[in-house]
Amino acid sequence: MTTLRSSFLASVICGVVLLCPMLVLGQSFKSFSFKSFTFKNRTVAVDQLGDCGTPQKPQWTSALADPLPSWNDTASKQSIIDFVTKVTKEGSPDFVPVAERIATFDNDGTLWCEMPLPVQLYFAIDRVKALAPMHPEWKEQQPFKGALEDDIKAIFANGERGLLELMMASHAGTTTEEFETLVKDWITTAKHPQFQRPYTELVYQPMLEVLAYLRANGFKTYVVSGGGIEFMRPWMEKAYGIPPEQVIGSSIKTKYEWRDGKPVLVRLPELDFNDDKAGKPVAINKFIGRRPIMAFGNSDGDFEMIEWTTTGKGARFGLIVHHTDGEREYAYDRKAGLARLDKGLDESPKRGWIVVSMKDDWKTVFPTKK
Amino acid sequence: MTTLRSSFLASVICGVVLLCPMLVLGQSFKSFSFKSFTFKNRTVAVDQLGDCGTPQKPQWTSALADPLPSWNDTASKQSIIDFVTKVTKEGSPDFVPVAERIATFDNDGTLWCEMPLPVQLYFAIDRVKALAPMHPEWKEQQPFKGALEDDIKAIFANGERGLLELMMASHAGTTTEEFETLVKDWITTAKHPQFQRPYTELVYQPMLEVLAYLRANGFKTYVVSGGGIEFMRPWMEKAYGIPPEQVIGSSIKTKYEWRDGKPVLVRLPELDFNDDKAGKPVAINKFIGRRPIMAFGNSDGDFEMIEWTTTGKGARFGLIVHHTDGEREYAYDRKAGLARLDKGLDESPKRGWIVVSMKDDWKTVFPTKK
Repeated sequence: MTTLRSSFLASVICGVVLLCPMLVLGQSFKSFSFKSFTFKNRTVAVDQLGDCGTPQKPQWTSALADPLPSWNDTASKQSIIDFVTKVTKEGSPDFVPVAERIATFDNDGTLWCEMPLPVQLYFAIDRVKALAPMHPEWKEQQPFKGALEDDIKAIFANGERGLLELMMASHAGTTTEEFETLVKDWITTAKHPQFQRPYTELVYQPMLEVLAYLRANGFKTYVVSGGGIEFMRPWMEKAYGIPPEQVIGSSIKTKYEWRDGKPVLVRLPELDFNDDKAGKPVAINKFIGRRPIMAFGNSDGDFEMIEWTTTGKGARFGLIVHHTDGEREYAYDRKAGLARLDKGLDESPKRGWIVVSMKDDWKTVFPTKK
Repeated sequence: MTTLRSSFLASVICGVVLLCPMLVLGQSFKSFSFKSFTFKNRTVAVDQLGDCGTPQKPQWTSALADPLPSWNDTASKQSIIDFVTKVTKEGSPDFVPVAERIATFDNDGTLWCEMPLPVQLYFAIDRVKALAPMHPEWKEQQPFKGALEDDIKAIFANGERGLLELMMASHAGTTTEEFETLVKDWITTAKHPQFQRPYTELVYQPMLEVLAYLRANGFKTYVVSGGGIEFMRPWMEKAYGIPPEQVIGSSIKTKYEWRDGKPVLVRLPELDFNDDKAGKPVAINKFIGRRPIMAFGNSDGDFEMIEWTTTGKGARFGLIVHHTDGEREYAYDRKAGLARLDKGLDESPKRGWIVVSMKDDWKTVFPTKK
């Protein structure tokens, strides 16, 4: 500890004396905006300096004293830190340049709670209820009847076709701007049926820490989800710090046209892309154009994304969140229907993917109530 | 001038004394990498300081003393600078936060030369020649016969159907990684038939300066082109400083499958998306999820992109590059076939879009020969 401190002090003095005031600066100004020149500091790393200015051994990292405080000190946590350390260490054989530090995250069940039903389905049901007065026929017609009566079994009785019909009726017909407003209004008022908290509070605190930790280390974090791209974008920047252009998802087609004297994009009741399973690497290639070096998922819908990520050249990292915590959240895997995790559990040990047990690896699940 | 200089000096002294060493720093270290903490300086702005630390009137900007040196001092150049100044000035009614500073650029004819034929068509022709030994039937079959004989008229004789057929035969069938290698190999060796320079040297120097100027002012610059997304990504980072994830274009479908013991994405001979005309706002919405505040194009294929950009709320900017320089490049507009600029010329004055005359507004067209 003394050694560490004196090295730290030596580094600072060395820095100041030789006019390398990065260390001091980093601590003095958290966010200093100066016209087209914004100084933002998210991590302060103090390294032992050789020829003053050449970072050598990392000695101390302030914001990252423990970058993952909601994780128990298990092998899972260590594997994340070890990977990030080795790919960000200049000169290391595993070093990855900042531009190639791409990490992709599934959303439902990986970043937020997806049980008892995917959140977007609750949105669809509420939207069908709101539209019902204009569709008297829905009272007798499935899957709409089921939605109006909160009869989930009836909704699922018609399989994928029924679900698709429900999604199109509830997600199409508006302009993109109108839809964004609908989502924003809904997400700020709707509550989870069991936890009675807004869905955006039922995000996983340990995963929020992973997102922030990666970004502080130069990663670009993306969501790659089977959920609707325009259902996710309106709230993800606030909830996860992920901007719209880094949110990839399933989509319906849109059409450019003039309405009321201005151009709009109208959402059509036609599937454009299903961003699930083998669709995920396809979408990653189309939207990002680079292969990620880290991928995080929780179900077999994420299998190909993690496979694509971890079979690239160089250091690679795959992680599966295993829902083992029936007390604090939900416990499910091989028989979970839409959220099934089966092949992933079998293959992870062979492929070196980390399987996180929510029960054992996570100190907390959701953020503290506000 | 004296006033300016003494204000500058006062600012620096004030900055140093009160431990705001940004100004000094900015000039001392061009790019200082310090473990997960990289300091990159692209612009140094010196403002008159009120309460030391609060930027007020901009006095001097070093890197940007003239941010657009290859532009003549005309109204076009001034309109770009005026717009960037007002949207980046904190407290201005037109101020736009960094996250929303999105600028989109067409590629062919806007960032690089598209005459006498779009560059990608030369690639397609060369690729058809390379594949010809495996397709003896092409010798007698259009549009392949035309491609093999450099008979451009014959290629175009079958209209869009013929072109599409040529593109699919030359662009599909490989994996995405193989295709990237093909493009990289070709783009580093192929030369423009008239200028006898690599195509990546036939980019517009004045536009490179606009790209750099915008990025130095917090903009995210995107390419939104009718060209193939995977034809453009391999070289645009080097040529324009635009990373793959900010390149949007037309695409063919890909399929995820295993080949030779590893997963690959195979390029299928099937159109996925045509990123032209009304497709451009559709793609912008899908890929970026935000409406740009600046858009740059050169043909009627860019009309809807510029329209969508300039009809949003707040300060907006649209610009059309008009090819008026038959001596240094090519002169074409209303009758230019694929590259036709007709509606754009009629509508620009009514809509406040800037029409740049290459002949009058640009000091130089291409970068100096290396």
